[in-house]
Amino acid sequence: MQRYFIDKSEIADELVLPAEIYHHAIRVMRLHVDSQFELVLKTQKVALMRITQVTKEEARAVLINWIETKVELPVHVTIACALSKSDKAEWIVQKGTELGASEFIFFAGEFSVAKWEQKKVAKKVERLSKVALNAAQQSHRTKIPTVQYNQSLTSIELSGFDYKLVAYEESAKNGEKSNLFGLTESMKKEITNSKQPELLAIFGPEGGISPREVDYMEKNRFVFAGLGPRIMRAETAPLYLLSALSFVIELG
Amino acid sequence: MQRYFIDKSEIADELVLPAEIYHHAIRVMRLHVDSQFELVLKTQKVALMRITQVTKEEARAVLINWIETKVELPVHVTIACALSKSDKAEWIVQKGTELGASEFIFFAGEFSVAKWEQKKVAKKVERLSKVALNAAQQSHRTKIPTVQYNQSLTSIELSGFDYKLVAYEESAKNGEKSNLFGLTESMKKEITNSKQPELLAIFGPEGGISPREVDYMEKNRFVFAGLGPRIMRAETAPLYLLSALSFVIELG
Repeated sequence: MQRYFIDKSEIADELVLPAEIYHHAIRVMRLHVDSQFELVLKTQKVALMRITQVTKEEARAVLINWIETKVELPVHVTIACALSKSDKAEWIVQKGTELGASEFIFFAGEFSVAKWEQKKVAKKVERLSKVALNAAQQSHRTKIPTVQYNQSLTSIELSGFDYKLVAYEESAKNGEKSNLFGLTESMKKEITNSKQPELLAIFGPEGGISPREVDYMEKNRFVFAGLGPRIMRAETAPLYLLSALSFVIELG
Repeated sequence: MQRYFIDKSEIADELVLPAEIYHHAIRVMRLHVDSQFELVLKTQKVALMRITQVTKEEARAVLINWIETKVELPVHVTIACALSKSDKAEWIVQKGTELGASEFIFFAGEFSVAKWEQKKVAKKVERLSKVALNAAQQSHRTKIPTVQYNQSLTSIELSGFDYKLVAYEESAKNGEKSNLFGLTESMKKEITNSKQPELLAIFGPEGGISPREVDYMEKNRFVFAGLGPRIMRAETAPLYLLSALSFVIELG
């Protein structure tokens, strides 16, 4: 069923569809009187709606009932990716949203070949936020992931994260295996105590993480984790992490 | 380090690089005398090689030593995807290879919107096999995944698979959680007894799996597994499965 996000915390008995939703629901999806759709409020509550009236100018819908959903990953995951050569940002945001990420941060790593021109940053972030919105609707999320850009790894605000992880190829090469597993185990414990852990996960560029960045993350008690024995492209590693988290926490 | 596959089971003390490797190593990557690269034999043995001579016509290299590697997923995974609207086949093969899949099968599902014209199948499979080769080299696999096309789900040969799974959205909707986890647990047991389980994993098209296909898979004892509460695009689900398998089997 079609799902839309609306920028309201509550809705009246009868709702006049906002212009954007009107356009997509009526013009694009050809919904009509008695068609149903889902509406996600800012509170993340999900309403099942029925269209009652359609004119050339507007459409009205009424609430059928509230839907109980539990689709959000119990961990609040922030995926922070260094800019990579083949700019896969859109792709990381789309797939990462399907897989349950809450926030995306793109930053210029010291070894990043790619750069975002300062004057283009706002446009890129706006574009990526739109990708996140569409993917959230498509994958029936109740939360729209946020997207931001940071000048560097060290400018990412670390306070507020319960767990800080970096996907470190050297760890994998040295056969490091258990760090990610250990991390998920302790997050699971917190979740069973009905906490929602906040995880920051850093992913380097093709060129890797610089010695200074490694030093900075060691000082700040990051967990250096290998993601298995195969070398993954920069855009694949975040999906590995999110899939593993979902599997062990939501299915395990 | 650059890695190449060679269609030989053994190499002499001195090797004249095959034309394709010569072109890529010397012309594209600009390797020169004393440059090192890795060579993967048909036996999956990995040789560390040093270039000893470069002319306009050929290049020679010698074996430095054999490299001990364990980069292959301990489960032999066959990813079978119904053709999907937005033809993401290349993408599934590239990412699935990075994540350790051994075989890819594309088939026309009963509810598949997309179709592959019979006369184009050979070219598509050839193209996808090249994608698998490149991804295998890039992710330092020792095995090149195979790619094939099947007319339908029922024409896929089932004998020889120890485990048969289908990613079933209805299962997820009904809150089915434990089937995939149970499957991985029993595969882990086999692996600890130094077996290599053979897993077939089926992924339907956007339109879903037809009642007849469901019936066929039930008759053939497939495990119907949900992959978490979020709806994933057709091309995302196989990556979720492969990542989860790697995490629980290689890191767990």
